[in-house]
Amino acid sequence: MVILINRFTLTASPEKFEEVFEKTAVFMRSQPGFIRHTLVKSLRDPSIYVNIAHWEDAADHIRSLQHPEFADHITALAEVATPDPDLYSIAQDVARAG
Amino acid sequence: MVILINRFTLTASPEKFEEVFEKTAVFMRSQPGFIRHTLVKSLRDPSIYVNIAHWEDAADHIRSLQHPEFADHITALAEVATPDPDLYSIAQDVARAG
Repeated sequence: MVILINRFTLTASPEKFEEVFEKTAVFMRSQPGFIRHTLVKSLRDPSIYVNIAHWEDAADHIRSLQHPEFADHITALAEVATPDPDLYSIAQDVARAG
Repeated sequence: MVILINRFTLTASPEKFEEVFEKTAVFMRSQPGFIRHTLVKSLRDPSIYVNIAHWEDAADHIRSLQHPEFADHITALAEVATPDPDLYSIAQDVARAG
């Protein structure tokens, strides 16, 4: 499993960003290898969002980026936010006991 | 629920950082309101780690930072990495169907 962390600095309203992001998320959820994602918003700065997405492996994520349909999503997102993505492997994953 | 995302830029080896981080994580896991955490490492840059921690609410997380024992962990971590933390609320959380 790999984890994509994509930090968005908004250039539009949070409402507009979430509306555009949701369309990309619907596409991503339909792609092979997608496991789950969580979009979070900063409590300190309302113009900062982070998407945390779990994928089966890096190749699955990269394949989704190369999908012809994804170019339109990239264009739409670029109009409402500046992304800063990176892929990660898991070093530790621990839940509280019980 | 709130989510802490803490991005670490390492100033020591990954092995040393993970060793020091694990001691802080053991402390955090014992604190009221801690739910789970995932430490991830960048596939692009081995000096970048991100800790994603779930807490019941912001007050629980802040209380853990104010715990007398936490000062020692901050000092130890500062010797191996530069942290960049922020707290987030969840905007969307979606898993694949099935």
